[in-house]
Amino acid sequence: MAQPQLVHNFEAGSMADKDLLGGKGANLAEMTRLGIPVPPGFTITTQACRAYLDSGSVPPALFEEVETHLAALEERMGRRLGDGEDPLLVSVRSGAKFSMPGMMETVLNIGLNDVSVEGLAAQTGNARFAWDSYRRLVQMYGKTVLDLEGHRFEDALDEAKAAKGVSVDLGLDADDLRALVARFKAIVEEDSGAPFPQDPRAQLHGAIVAVFDSWNSPRAILYRRRENIPTDLGTAVNVQAMAFGNRGADSGSGVAFTRDPSTGAVGVYGDYLADAQGEDVVAGIRNTLSLADLEGLDKKSFDELLGIMARLEAHYRDVCDIEFTIERGKLWMLQTRVGKRTAEAAFRIAVDLIDEGVITEEEALQRVTGDQLAQLMFPHFDPESTRSLIAKGMSASPGAAVGVAVFDSDAAVRLAEAGTPVILVRRETNPDDLHGMVAAAGVLTSRGGKTSHAAVVARGMGRTCVCGAESLEIDLKARQFTTADGTIVREGDTLSIDGATGEVFSGEVAVRPSLVVRYSEGTVSVEEGGPLVAAVDRLMRVADRLRRMKVRANADTGEDAARARRFGAEGIGLCRTEHMFLGPRREIVERLILAETDDEKQAVFDELLPLQRADFVEIFDAMDGLPVTVRLLDPPLHEFLPDFTDLSVKVAVAEATGQDHTEESRLLAAVHRLHESNPMLGLRGVRLGLSLPGLFEMQARAILEAAAIVNERGGHARPEIMVPLVGSIAELRAIRVEIDDAAHEARVKHSVHMEHLVGTMIELPRAALTAGRIAEAADFFSFGTNDLTQMTWGFSRDDVESSFFSRYLEDGILTSSPFENIDRDGVGRLVSIGTEEGRRTKPELKVGVCGEHGGDPASVHFFEERGLDYVSCSPFRVPVARLEAGRAMVTDPAG
Amino acid sequence: MAQPQLVHNFEAGSMADKDLLGGKGANLAEMTRLGIPVPPGFTITTQACRAYLDSGSVPPALFEEVETHLAALEERMGRRLGDGEDPLLVSVRSGAKFSMPGMMETVLNIGLNDVSVEGLAAQTGNARFAWDSYRRLVQMYGKTVLDLEGHRFEDALDEAKAAKGVSVDLGLDADDLRALVARFKAIVEEDSGAPFPQDPRAQLHGAIVAVFDSWNSPRAILYRRRENIPTDLGTAVNVQAMAFGNRGADSGSGVAFTRDPSTGAVGVYGDYLADAQGEDVVAGIRNTLSLADLEGLDKKSFDELLGIMARLEAHYRDVCDIEFTIERGKLWMLQTRVGKRTAEAAFRIAVDLIDEGVITEEEALQRVTGDQLAQLMFPHFDPESTRSLIAKGMSASPGAAVGVAVFDSDAAVRLAEAGTPVILVRRETNPDDLHGMVAAAGVLTSRGGKTSHAAVVARGMGRTCVCGAESLEIDLKARQFTTADGTIVREGDTLSIDGATGEVFSGEVAVRPSLVVRYSEGTVSVEEGGPLVAAVDRLMRVADRLRRMKVRANADTGEDAARARRFGAEGIGLCRTEHMFLGPRREIVERLILAETDDEKQAVFDELLPLQRADFVEIFDAMDGLPVTVRLLDPPLHEFLPDFTDLSVKVAVAEATGQDHTEESRLLAAVHRLHESNPMLGLRGVRLGLSLPGLFEMQARAILEAAAIVNERGGHARPEIMVPLVGSIAELRAIRVEIDDAAHEARVKHSVHMEHLVGTMIELPRAALTAGRIAEAADFFSFGTNDLTQMTWGFSRDDVESSFFSRYLEDGILTSSPFENIDRDGVGRLVSIGTEEGRRTKPELKVGVCGEHGGDPASVHFFEERGLDYVSCSPFRVPVARLEAGRAMVTDPAG
Repeated sequence: MAQPQLVHNFEAGSMADKDLLGGKGANLAEMTRLGIPVPPGFTITTQACRAYLDSGSVPPALFEEVETHLAALEERMGRRLGDGEDPLLVSVRSGAKFSMPGMMETVLNIGLNDVSVEGLAAQTGNARFAWDSYRRLVQMYGKTVLDLEGHRFEDALDEAKAAKGVSVDLGLDADDLRALVARFKAIVEEDSGAPFPQDPRAQLHGAIVAVFDSWNSPRAILYRRRENIPTDLGTAVNVQAMAFGNRGADSGSGVAFTRDPSTGAVGVYGDYLADAQGEDVVAGIRNTLSLADLEGLDKKSFDELLGIMARLEAHYRDVCDIEFTIERGKLWMLQTRVGKRTAEAAFRIAVDLIDEGVITEEEALQRVTGDQLAQLMFPHFDPESTRSLIAKGMSASPGAAVGVAVFDSDAAVRLAEAGTPVILVRRETNPDDLHGMVAAAGVLTSRGGKTSHAAVVARGMGRTCVCGAESLEIDLKARQFTTADGTIVREGDTLSIDGATGEVFSGEVAVRPSLVVRYSEGTVSVEEGGPLVAAVDRLMRVADRLRRMKVRANADTGEDAARARRFGAEGIGLCRTEHMFLGPRREIVERLILAETDDEKQAVFDELLPLQRADFVEIFDAMDGLPVTVRLLDPPLHEFLPDFTDLSVKVAVAEATGQDHTEESRLLAAVHRLHESNPMLGLRGVRLGLSLPGLFEMQARAILEAAAIVNERGGHARPEIMVPLVGSIAELRAIRVEIDDAAHEARVKHSVHMEHLVGTMIELPRAALTAGRIAEAADFFSFGTNDLTQMTWGFSRDDVESSFFSRYLEDGILTSSPFENIDRDGVGRLVSIGTEEGRRTKPELKVGVCGEHGGDPASVHFFEERGLDYVSCSPFRVPVARLEAGRAMVTDPAG
Repeated sequence: MAQPQLVHNFEAGSMADKDLLGGKGANLAEMTRLGIPVPPGFTITTQACRAYLDSGSVPPALFEEVETHLAALEERMGRRLGDGEDPLLVSVRSGAKFSMPGMMETVLNIGLNDVSVEGLAAQTGNARFAWDSYRRLVQMYGKTVLDLEGHRFEDALDEAKAAKGVSVDLGLDADDLRALVARFKAIVEEDSGAPFPQDPRAQLHGAIVAVFDSWNSPRAILYRRRENIPTDLGTAVNVQAMAFGNRGADSGSGVAFTRDPSTGAVGVYGDYLADAQGEDVVAGIRNTLSLADLEGLDKKSFDELLGIMARLEAHYRDVCDIEFTIERGKLWMLQTRVGKRTAEAAFRIAVDLIDEGVITEEEALQRVTGDQLAQLMFPHFDPESTRSLIAKGMSASPGAAVGVAVFDSDAAVRLAEAGTPVILVRRETNPDDLHGMVAAAGVLTSRGGKTSHAAVVARGMGRTCVCGAESLEIDLKARQFTTADGTIVREGDTLSIDGATGEVFSGEVAVRPSLVVRYSEGTVSVEEGGPLVAAVDRLMRVADRLRRMKVRANADTGEDAARARRFGAEGIGLCRTEHMFLGPRREIVERLILAETDDEKQAVFDELLPLQRADFVEIFDAMDGLPVTVRLLDPPLHEFLPDFTDLSVKVAVAEATGQDHTEESRLLAAVHRLHESNPMLGLRGVRLGLSLPGLFEMQARAILEAAAIVNERGGHARPEIMVPLVGSIAELRAIRVEIDDAAHEARVKHSVHMEHLVGTMIELPRAALTAGRIAEAADFFSFGTNDLTQMTWGFSRDDVESSFFSRYLEDGILTSSPFENIDRDGVGRLVSIGTEEGRRTKPELKVGVCGEHGGDPASVHFFEERGLDYVSCSPFRVPVARLEAGRAMVTDPAG
């Protein structure tokens, strides 16, 4: 059987060959193919690398093929590798399919040895250049190929400069460098036990193998785990004739973008450094010139470069990021790729490219992401402003907030009402902090992760939040906290928190305002002026035109619902009713729990019914004409009572000190009765509804009477009642009877026509696995992917982040939190099973998703693939979800 | 289209038609077909019933078909229904596919009215009989067809007896009954608003509809839910000529079995009552005669009956249970069915039928069950002994135990060592009670259900246990408990507990000894003499010959392992290591948790290693030559520390009262750090192994060094190391490296050959859903169906039983606990997915199940269907699992 070719000339490939040639190799080939000046060379395939990694030895044919291509290269360049008179020098660079910046190895100047260095000096008339090049080769080769310790070379360089009394490399002349080469070669021999190889072929082979090996360096492995890059791809190796930008004033190196990567503005953008190599531009040792300045220095090269950049942008149909070198007036392109850009630039460039007729609207939509939109929608600290970092926590909810520190929710409300912006600082928050969080500009906690109460609620409200800033010692009594370096921040001191980075600053940091996306009667409009706004507006319209899925919001109050509608929600996908049992109503719920007879319980239900009904009237009014999914009470009852341990301590201390504790003891008995060792797996959801007859019935009546009231006065309420935590159809059937009865009574009582749907959360694995049965009794399914993730993985959101979770992410056992991005293989499979089998039973079954994943871009794409009818997310994520739901129609899942 | 026939003569059906004719109708048809004397009649099909229930009205053709069949019946009997001179009377009885005893309706004596009662009196020459028959008809018709209140009739009957001054019905003569009929008819008219129907056709039609309706009576619905009978089958209705056993001394009724249903002894067995109807035999108002006495009363009928019974047994190839009536010397068979029997009888009959050449060994195996074997393996209270019931709890672990009450485990050990049998009484048990449970004859708790710690551990040890006896008020300080009626039982008082019924008796109840099953080198032997033993031994051998699955035991110590082997275990399927960290070693673990540096932790590991290694040597010795699956540490670390709330109270009280609490506070800090709101979903299993480096490595070394030591001295240890709570292959891969390294080192250190396997529990839904990936790194899977059930349903074993679970079972939302019988649709589907996809990746993958389901008969059949390699259960369940694994090869799943 014919062996596959392991080496390809640049002339033989194209940009489509990234699998085989890696990203860099494919783009070099593409430029070569376009006739753009690229230093000639060849690429060793990823397949060769994989063969080496699998077998542990270089494929037999590899070096023969390299030799053939090298001979052709020498022929073409008219010089021979390492020739004593006029040596050809080559670079050896890694280049995998996916960019892994800085993770793998490069060796430059291969071909130099004690003889050819003199030839290079003679040919270039620049002995310093020649010896500096040789010095660099020995150093790179020692570190990379021979795996010697880098600091040995750096120390020797420092010594040489110290001996000479200079501070920069340029202070060393040719003789100094010649001496340094001798010292470097001695280090190589001392540390590796063998002299630096003088044979250019040996150098080349060693460098190739070193690049192969670097695929499996620990940092590369970790990087791939974190970025979710497959471990078995291998890297290509590019061998290319060296071009030198450091051969005098008519030489130089630069990097450039075909448009401004920061703002997206039209016009080339870049840096140039005369008499320098590429790494010098990046290293920042000398001040670079603007690309425009090149015109004055070398008009011919400048014009040629601009022409090439225009061709590349037209060819790649996107902004390109390039590296180039000018060697004695001759322009060489060293690299090109599609350029990275900021969120702002992404939107502007995409729309400009439509207007220029380069790409279609559908393509433009693929050039922006929901994450970029989210960045634009939240305020940022001005990057130019000064700041003093005092702690770092987790980036729990984006935005930039400035205010005075307060340590309890009542104080937050008091100050905020008096017009002072506040940052609410707590160890952790709980449902009773809701009013404080509403009042605050931002929330800072010292405990809990991205899915802690503070984080989830703050995201839901669009409130900036940094959580789990563990270095803060919060002293609630003293109303202050202490940072790791001992700084004390007292109540009333000003703080700034960055919800996108998790940073906490003392004092005020200047804020740049955000983009505001608004929808009004089906029309999107983005507030604030300028070209960015027009671009976002344009692409949002494109997304809305393309998308199939509806986007709803999670909202628990009339106010939330109205805001959600402004953000473009097409209904409410999850209205939680537990918040309606908090605050002043907590006392009523406490009486319910302590009630001993059915009559006592019914009396409490009778008291709650009108309160709940009024809540729902507000919500249906705000969502007039749009569907509203209300979830019946889900959490365990003990959440409405004091904490078991706290109360136990209180009672025991009272008893030990002879104080009265009759009331507390009575409460403790109830708390103890309801105490569960794993409340997440206990008496909640439909189980609670079936165990406490009257509860769900009361809620159903409140919802349906509210809907009837709204309809009676000419509105259009569309209630969808959702039963939580259903595991078997029998549970749903039992509750459905109560709901349908309540609907009938509400219709009769108010003499109105009213549709109502009854459905269930699919949040237990069993619900998904038996969805075909459950669909018999359901009008709709809503995947509760938070709980479904908890049950499928068997870890709870509350507990994981404080223990093993961060370690799992660090070690790459998880590449992202399954609570943020849907776990396609496990949880996603249950979503697929549930959707398919539910619809097989009932083709008209409406299927949606509520919970955090509804607003996550990658997850939205997954739900589109699975054919869900809608996603539901927090109001502030609605524009993001709309954009992504549109993008999901035109991008492939990995995009 | 031709309508299906809705009515069938008895001559037209057979025993195969149970779906259409119900059980009773099919058996009546079968007997008719065999030429056995059955009062003629016909059956209305279940299909007619379903049509009625679906549409709410009687199918148009039904009464026409009934008329045709009735005409034929009248023709054949030479009498007409309700004829004034010589009336034909019929019974109308329900009869569903599955027996639902007492759940549906029957109406007898249809055809009697004010005229025909006189005809019957004249024809029979027995006016009292005629009027009593009419009285019964009006009463049954009123209650059943017209849905009137039964007590109205009973009150009137009582009044009539009181007026006459007699105490039994027989004290009323014909005139009294005639007056009573008038009173009953008045009640019907008063309560229903219409007179009792005199038209015999109206009576018949009303009775048929009433039987149809009774399918959906609340008690029938509840019964079906509990027994898991489909709700949509409907019942058949049998209309049959009446035969009267109450027509004088030459008449009578009886019930009989073709063998003794209590012991299985050969020879007919039954009761006979002269001059009586069937219901009188059952009601026990007069003393019945033995069936043998019939020979002296009516030899002809007796001989005929014995002949029929022999024919039926030969025909049904099993013991039959029959009902018969003799009317004036003429024998009529009213019913037959396969007879219910005790566990003892089941084994003896099955083996006798083999020996008689009636059935094969395979068929015999289908006639006994694992539950019956389990009953025989545990002692029972002598049914003849007197007893005083003081409480009732749940039947947690079978057996009958007698001993003195003790209230703590140390006292239990002390007394037991002194030779006094004890019953350990606790509110609930925890791992520290293990020594007390080992010492006790039985365990009684007032809290927790069938899967509480007490229940699970007791079943594992084969110890009798009653748990959740909630009426007991246990006062640990006073060392006594109080029952619901105020009885006080003090420490030292004798108690008897029945683990099969959950009953608690004061004083001593006599115990009958149990059967003991022993295996020795592959041969089964059942101890204790007698025919039962030979029968069990025979069928166990049949099961062992047929079965494909292996049966292993769950055992944590060398002693457990040795016992498991005696019970026939073919390996250990689950050796939990957490018990090895309790007792005196708890202090070591506490130091591990409090250790702050890696060195301190390593020192603790070094201390634990030899202790664990010694444990494993004992186990491998006991299981020499057989596989031993050891699970690495699974529970969260805080389980080894004091309870968070208890300790918080202790510290707070000490602080409030000015006592020293330095040590407790230090411990509390650790407990607080490890505290989780849902420990079941937290830091445990492989997560713990990866978060506390060194722990799993230490365990792996202990296991593998122990195996190497055993092999070094000529034994054959077969270690299989199991990683708990794996959710993704990355977790298993990371641990597998440590285990394989430890195995290599142990082989080198002891210079032995040693196989070892590495596998994982499949106990998270995600593990099952991604089993195809996980199998890449696993040599075996073991389904941890306890945890898998918890996660799939989202309820915890600890919490459910105290809250909604019993309600779910009562309401029929669950038909059995999924922790006892595998939930085929949900958890079972994950078992199927995991097994199939794991084996698709790795065909040689060994797949087993550990956990409670491994010893549950219905679940064993499921695992056989799914092709698992073995089940593992508690040692005492091993014989049951072996029997059921054999049965699973010859019975269908529902059997």
